[in-house]
Amino acid sequence: MDLDKVLYGGDYNPEQWLDRPDILEEDIAMMQEAHINTVTLGVFSWSTLEPEEGKYNFGWLDTIMDRLDQAGISVILATPSGARPQWMAEKYPEVLRVNERRERAHYGYRHNHCYTSPIYRQKVRAINMELAKRYGKRKQVILWHISNEYGGECHCPLCQEAFRNWVKDKYKTVEALNQAWSTTFWSHTYQSFDQVESPSPLGETMLHGLNLDWKRFVSEQTGDFIAEEIKAIRDAGSDIPTTINMMHDFYGLNYHQLAKLIDVVSWDTYPTWHKEPEILTATDNGFWHDFMRSLKNQPYLMMESCPSSTNWQSVSKLKRPGMLDAQSMQAIAHGSDSVLYFQIRQSRGASEKFHGAVIDHYGGRDTRVFKEVTKVGEELGAIRELVGSTTHADVAVIYDIENRWAMEDAQGPRNKGLHYVEAVQKSYYAFRKLGLNVDVINMDHAFKGYKILAAPMAYMFREGFAERVRDFVAQGGIFITTYHSGIVDATDRCYLGATPAGLTDLLGLRQTEIDGLYDGETNQLVPEDRSIFANQISYESKYLCQLIDVTSARVLMTYGTDFYQGQPAVTFQPYGMGYGYYIGADVEQSCYDDLYKRIVELSRVCKPFNYIPEGVEVTTRSKEGCDYVILQNFSAMNQHVELGEGELLLGSRSGKISPYETIILRRDKK
Amino acid sequence: MDLDKVLYGGDYNPEQWLDRPDILEEDIAMMQEAHINTVTLGVFSWSTLEPEEGKYNFGWLDTIMDRLDQAGISVILATPSGARPQWMAEKYPEVLRVNERRERAHYGYRHNHCYTSPIYRQKVRAINMELAKRYGKRKQVILWHISNEYGGECHCPLCQEAFRNWVKDKYKTVEALNQAWSTTFWSHTYQSFDQVESPSPLGETMLHGLNLDWKRFVSEQTGDFIAEEIKAIRDAGSDIPTTINMMHDFYGLNYHQLAKLIDVVSWDTYPTWHKEPEILTATDNGFWHDFMRSLKNQPYLMMESCPSSTNWQSVSKLKRPGMLDAQSMQAIAHGSDSVLYFQIRQSRGASEKFHGAVIDHYGGRDTRVFKEVTKVGEELGAIRELVGSTTHADVAVIYDIENRWAMEDAQGPRNKGLHYVEAVQKSYYAFRKLGLNVDVINMDHAFKGYKILAAPMAYMFREGFAERVRDFVAQGGIFITTYHSGIVDATDRCYLGATPAGLTDLLGLRQTEIDGLYDGETNQLVPEDRSIFANQISYESKYLCQLIDVTSARVLMTYGTDFYQGQPAVTFQPYGMGYGYYIGADVEQSCYDDLYKRIVELSRVCKPFNYIPEGVEVTTRSKEGCDYVILQNFSAMNQHVELGEGELLLGSRSGKISPYETIILRRDKK
Amino acid sequence: MDLDKVLYGGDYNPEQWLDRPDILEEDIAMMQEAHINTVTLGVFSWSTLEPEEGKYNFGWLDTIMDRLDQAGISVILATPSGARPQWMAEKYPEVLRVNERRERAHYGYRHNHCYTSPIYRQKVRAINMELAKRYGKRKQVILWHISNEYGGECHCPLCQEAFRNWVKDKYKTVEALNQAWSTTFWSHTYQSFDQVESPSPLGETMLHGLNLDWKRFVSEQTGDFIAEEIKAIRDAGSDIPTTINMMHDFYGLNYHQLAKLIDVVSWDTYPTWHKEPEILTATDNGFWHDFMRSLKNQPYLMMESCPSSTNWQSVSKLKRPGMLDAQSMQAIAHGSDSVLYFQIRQSRGASEKFHGAVIDHYGGRDTRVFKEVTKVGEELGAIRELVGSTTHADVAVIYDIENRWAMEDAQGPRNKGLHYVEAVQKSYYAFRKLGLNVDVINMDHAFKGYKILAAPMAYMFREGFAERVRDFVAQGGIFITTYHSGIVDATDRCYLGATPAGLTDLLGLRQTEIDGLYDGETNQLVPEDRSIFANQISYESKYLCQLIDVTSARVLMTYGTDFYQGQPAVTFQPYGMGYGYYIGADVEQSCYDDLYKRIVELSRVCKPFNYIPEGVEVTTRSKEGCDYVILQNFSAMNQHVELGEGELLLGSRSGKISPYETIILRRDKK
Repeated sequence: MDLDKVLYGGDYNPEQWLDRPDILEEDIAMMQEAHINTVTLGVFSWSTLEPEEGKYNFGWLDTIMDRLDQAGISVILATPSGARPQWMAEKYPEVLRVNERRERAHYGYRHNHCYTSPIYRQKVRAINMELAKRYGKRKQVILWHISNEYGGECHCPLCQEAFRNWVKDKYKTVEALNQAWSTTFWSHTYQSFDQVESPSPLGETMLHGLNLDWKRFVSEQTGDFIAEEIKAIRDAGSDIPTTINMMHDFYGLNYHQLAKLIDVVSWDTYPTWHKEPEILTATDNGFWHDFMRSLKNQPYLMMESCPSSTNWQSVSKLKRPGMLDAQSMQAIAHGSDSVLYFQIRQSRGASEKFHGAVIDHYGGRDTRVFKEVTKVGEELGAIRELVGSTTHADVAVIYDIENRWAMEDAQGPRNKGLHYVEAVQKSYYAFRKLGLNVDVINMDHAFKGYKILAAPMAYMFREGFAERVRDFVAQGGIFITTYHSGIVDATDRCYLGATPAGLTDLLGLRQTEIDGLYDGETNQLVPEDRSIFANQISYESKYLCQLIDVTSARVLMTYGTDFYQGQPAVTFQPYGMGYGYYIGADVEQSCYDDLYKRIVELSRVCKPFNYIPEGVEVTTRSKEGCDYVILQNFSAMNQHVELGEGELLLGSRSGKISPYETIILRRDKK
Repeated sequence: MDLDKVLYGGDYNPEQWLDRPDILEEDIAMMQEAHINTVTLGVFSWSTLEPEEGKYNFGWLDTIMDRLDQAGISVILATPSGARPQWMAEKYPEVLRVNERRERAHYGYRHNHCYTSPIYRQKVRAINMELAKRYGKRKQVILWHISNEYGGECHCPLCQEAFRNWVKDKYKTVEALNQAWSTTFWSHTYQSFDQVESPSPLGETMLHGLNLDWKRFVSEQTGDFIAEEIKAIRDAGSDIPTTINMMHDFYGLNYHQLAKLIDVVSWDTYPTWHKEPEILTATDNGFWHDFMRSLKNQPYLMMESCPSSTNWQSVSKLKRPGMLDAQSMQAIAHGSDSVLYFQIRQSRGASEKFHGAVIDHYGGRDTRVFKEVTKVGEELGAIRELVGSTTHADVAVIYDIENRWAMEDAQGPRNKGLHYVEAVQKSYYAFRKLGLNVDVINMDHAFKGYKILAAPMAYMFREGFAERVRDFVAQGGIFITTYHSGIVDATDRCYLGATPAGLTDLLGLRQTEIDGLYDGETNQLVPEDRSIFANQISYESKYLCQLIDVTSARVLMTYGTDFYQGQPAVTFQPYGMGYGYYIGADVEQSCYDDLYKRIVELSRVCKPFNYIPEGVEVTTRSKEGCDYVILQNFSAMNQHVELGEGELLLGSRSGKISPYETIILRRDKK
Repeated sequence: MDLDKVLYGGDYNPEQWLDRPDILEEDIAMMQEAHINTVTLGVFSWSTLEPEEGKYNFGWLDTIMDRLDQAGISVILATPSGARPQWMAEKYPEVLRVNERRERAHYGYRHNHCYTSPIYRQKVRAINMELAKRYGKRKQVILWHISNEYGGECHCPLCQEAFRNWVKDKYKTVEALNQAWSTTFWSHTYQSFDQVESPSPLGETMLHGLNLDWKRFVSEQTGDFIAEEIKAIRDAGSDIPTTINMMHDFYGLNYHQLAKLIDVVSWDTYPTWHKEPEILTATDNGFWHDFMRSLKNQPYLMMESCPSSTNWQSVSKLKRPGMLDAQSMQAIAHGSDSVLYFQIRQSRGASEKFHGAVIDHYGGRDTRVFKEVTKVGEELGAIRELVGSTTHADVAVIYDIENRWAMEDAQGPRNKGLHYVEAVQKSYYAFRKLGLNVDVINMDHAFKGYKILAAPMAYMFREGFAERVRDFVAQGGIFITTYHSGIVDATDRCYLGATPAGLTDLLGLRQTEIDGLYDGETNQLVPEDRSIFANQISYESKYLCQLIDVTSARVLMTYGTDFYQGQPAVTFQPYGMGYGYYIGADVEQSCYDDLYKRIVELSRVCKPFNYIPEGVEVTTRSKEGCDYVILQNFSAMNQHVELGEGELLLGSRSGKISPYETIILRRDKK
């Protein structure tokens, strides 16, 4: 995408108001007042676009697009496959999804079609081609929004057949399948590929190889569906870029793979501000921003966010004054070229009628939300030079969806919770506190270019991973890993011999036993050298404590209690031109902070500031010739900041930054 | 009903003891000793009455009724439709209910027949006519007890068809249906009425208009079934009055509508005494007594209560000595003309064998329960002049079942709990603490005659409601409403423009945003004028805080913290000859108490006593020429009471009332 | 079984490693190093043994058994019915179980075949005969391990038919059935046996007679299946003893009945050490050891235990050093002639890949677990003279599975939890603290030979029970029972008249009402005579308080609060040559301790030591001429012990016993 503005606006559903032309007119007037320049149309419009099979109704959309065009408002156009019309489900029940208990869904809800059904694919192709032919060359249309929030799985006979073919393609022989899935256990040996069935609570849920491959299949089949949606658009002659809107902490699909099918990554974010300390919410939200950005390592879009409170979370909490601004600027800071809302105007009925919107049921301009939305619009206009700027990171953390699938599906070592995401975010946060940009990548991502790579709870070492880590470290990289790493291969079969498999020489140790701790139980990690870790006498650990046999590593910390008191817990050693670090237990954040601070100090990584106050997020976007350093205060107090050189784009040089405030500084590159 | 005694007795199941004539004989002797004058027969007797299709067996019932007659014991006769015989389910599976997952029930349990099935209706008609022909003119029979504790829903094809017809009748055109249910959202537009299906977790649960209409249909279809049951009785020539037994806090059916079908309201009450402070349990129980009484605004019956402990609650707690008396007298106080138990004799086996009864498995007279039952029987004899006396209330609170259906089904503003019933009961309790009789009515009830009307969380303003409130206030009424009021119309579509819809001028404000609070979070309501609310510096609020724009109202309290600190929370203003009050947040009981006390003081409402001690309930029944003032002490201590003028029917003029004691005072009207 | 060694070893699955002959070789070498002398083969081997219908593959098993034989390792050989091959489910779906919702299982998981299916029985018979013919006379094979961890139920049409026949056999007439199940209640009268259906959430769950008989049927049908498995082995000419492996706290089957079908009892134990204080875990584990031993009152086997941590519990906690030894020796102490593990070698994949094993994925000898396993092996060699020694107990506690079924299925008096097992274990623990061996028996077990018999919460008095108790006490026995006893007969019908039915004269009281207490509520039991119970002023009780009318009993304690303050709670009276004790409430352990200590002191029961420190378990096994007194310290501290006379087999005479230490002393009988 080659943008000349920060995209500002969001989902707009004029089809809900076709009987109220006065409201449609007022909407555009209010958008203009609020500096809105972009809307997303067509999500869930299928019934209106094709009210009877093959009979299309585009008039209303023509009209609204013309009027938006006159108002200078760009359009992101959605394909309507997220929810199908009733007539289709009635005539072709195969388009309805079948659940894991093998029950066919009735019509209703959304995001619940069969991804395999030839009829559904054919119907989607037809409507997509119609849309693309009619609007696919229009200048106003800047992006195709393919369907909506893909997810879920279907267990219908068509999907079973597709899965069997997928398995056959992958393993070629039944013997290879039995080997990979360890079917001898519990006597589950397959005699033929025809016996393969998706996991089901009525049948098999404990064959982890099957579960893992089923998840892979679901993700790939969804990808295949997406590819067909896009192909229809291209076949109809439109070459406008495409996106799908992804979701926070969603791991039903492998987004790393799906990102390859589209031109631009976008995602929907609904952080629960005002629940935990804001900086924790901001860090989690920032993590997922960085995950999305890292998928293609280019600017992405925030496709949905809420200008007020959502209606579907357990408690609909209002955003405090200023938080909308902070949330919007955080997206920009992390590399988004948009601030888009769900939704422009609140629907009058149905399940999301209480979801926050730019224009609410009251409909006036004299609302707190409309005023704040307008202010954000103004600011985004003032910083439009950031559009297209990119993000460079010296450090990366690995968050791998396949790793998560396998680890969380396994039985043991802690069925009450492994806390994988938390472990990854502890590394992420430790880097972020130093003001560093962080890439969030999967294990298949190239390591070259990074100076430090953290791989917490890297349970699954797919083929080649260990070798690539060894190369990375040999050439000067710093690699950090933790407990429960390097245990299984890509089919969830345990490595025989010492672990982390293939990295025991690099780390100078092998993992022996792993101890599970009950909720509330703790151990401590005690630094060996008090001069290095001066902040705390010891660090609290919980959930999991890995015991290790150290061969050559240097011990940095040992366990403080239990029968393994005094045994090594944190180690490092040089390897080639780099270093290998190992953290044995699920230890508190401050331990990560102190350790990573020291690792960064000893590395060649540069920090944007020497000192960053608690609760302040620092992020950098770059363009040829200059960096944009963005500071945001997510603490509850004014914080003192020394901005140093650079030109202010937003905020003031008062020496302080107030809660929810954003400062943007342009610094020339040296 | 024209009664000459307080009905005293309860459910009796002689069909369980037909092989034990000695026990049946002993039962009647013991009933007489306990002053029991009424039993309910025939609930769940169908298998015994009609052991084979069309072969009736009434001999045993003839005998038992004759013997009861000789003992002077009246009979409430039940129709047996609450549970059908096995042969019927075997031969006609359509009588079995289908659940929301579309699974047909197997035979078993109770209260689970299809209300639509023509065969079930025909079989019920036949047995009802047989019963009515045989017993329907017998003087001993004083009431028809239609079925038992109606409830639940059926999703079978017959019900689907009936629902489709119901929807078609209501909306006439598919366009009107789509409009009412806001089906454009998520593209769920109906092309034809044939596509309408009841809500299902396998299909649609998020179309609130559908959910709401389905609940209405279920209630009406049940009503239609009840009407047919009654018609059979009438067609067979019996004109004895009818009742159905309703339930505590049950909102699966719209009791306001069903009450119109029957002659007398009755209900089953099983308060969990000795769990919370007794006065809270008594207040809740009293609320539902008043709800039942208000349904027809005439004396009603307590059809079931437990003389000891139930067996189906989580903990079977014994009633402390005296509590049975207090519970029984509370029913009388609130307008019941009966004290009826489930059950006279404990069943020997099956699921309720441990449910409390007048006669237990031991079978002796030397039990605590039997002695207490006998004492209650004596007392009821002594106060029989209260029978037929009515209840007059100057104040009413609105508890509306449709409002509850809609509000609790909606997504937001607090999916973790809206606490509607609690909100209504806070108003109720504040009035009751002043010794006032309170009517509990729905929104459709006439307002004329009330001096104060409280409508907490009146989310749904059905057509005409706002106008009727305006009339009420214009003519001098005091109207109180709260946060989250006047939001949607009768199809759960949001009102556009300012809310509470149609009452913004009356109240002098409009609702803007509503803030959800997490469990444990609080705000405070701070009185503006400390001379008016002297008891507390501030009142704690939780769950929901409504923000308002005040146009002309006078502010009584403001918020104490958060970004809306200092903004108005409680207001009032004169309108016509009356006043409109608004309470913005879910505030603690004491705030309601202080506010309502002041409102009542400034009104023309008269209180029976100037001072009522904490934990004492005061209720008044009236007859031509006199009032019966009933005091009950639900606190844990003796309380001082000044009875003033009047003649004592129960209790003493000692100046104190002890825990669980009841005092009844007859006062001549002036 | 006539053993000359403590069986040491466990489950071994060479079929998982047929492609790794190097590993199979290494396994045997490591077993020998660890003093392993026995392995269990063939559990879950069906797919490998019969890869196609009727085509057997025994070569691999021949080879491994020969090699084990050469290494001097005995074999326990399993029949493979615990999990069937895929081809069988595919060809004969009737072998798959149907759940209570009437859904047929898909292929997968384990322990889920239909016990009734003629085809499954025929297939099992065929493979069992093949195994028995081939290996059933081999000297190395010392035991048949029939299937694996039997459990669960099937609701398929074949099982329904079998259940109907079972019911018909039991009741002969429909009238008798209706009487027994109290079907008049809720009008559920059966017109014919053809209407009988197993309980289902879609139909009937509240007919307790049906539920109870269904549980009996499931247990007996499973027994019938077991008998057929064994018959196949015998028909094939093998007369090697048989076992089934039972489970901790499992009550889906009536183990007392199943034990009659087999020669040796064995069970699988996975205590959660290091969660509660060890002595509580040890007491629970010891209780189930004693339950298993008492089933046949002869030495039994610990068939499975974990050398490290399991992977299926909520938290996989490592065993602290020494705990493996203590757990193993506890089995020996309670009468096991084996210490067997699940498993010898960890599987590489599938659901139990992280379950602890003698040999782990690392595969080396230099692991903590392998070293501890080796040490246990050494010790077991040193104490082999204990093999075959028996256990004599003067006292018994009744834990009755049918009683539990009935009581926990009933509605009331406390649906939030009756705590039956805890009540039984309180009696058990009070005896064990005195160093007494305790038999854990059901109500049908002979009472002769015991001096004291405790029957807590003996809700169901089956025919003859009360008479047998009266005989026992008349002849000098001491009988203790509690609240909620003697309430129902064998069909869960309440006894009419005074309860505990048939024992009111023996106890000198009758039960009247029972009060349920909410969680957190308490009462107190206050001793009448402070000189007898000097330790505590009162004892806390919770959950349930039984009120009683004392006729002739002497009152030992009374209630401390509530309306029954001062009423009797604990009583006793002489009867014949013995005594009857009654405990009215769920009182804390220390009350049981103080009461039982006094009862034992006044009885003819001999204790092995005068003083036993807190946390030390004392158990005795006996042989002709000598006793083996075994002490184990499950406290966290060194404890002082005076061993007295006898010869040490394990441990030292240092005067102290350290945590997890075991001391074994041989004392000559006098």
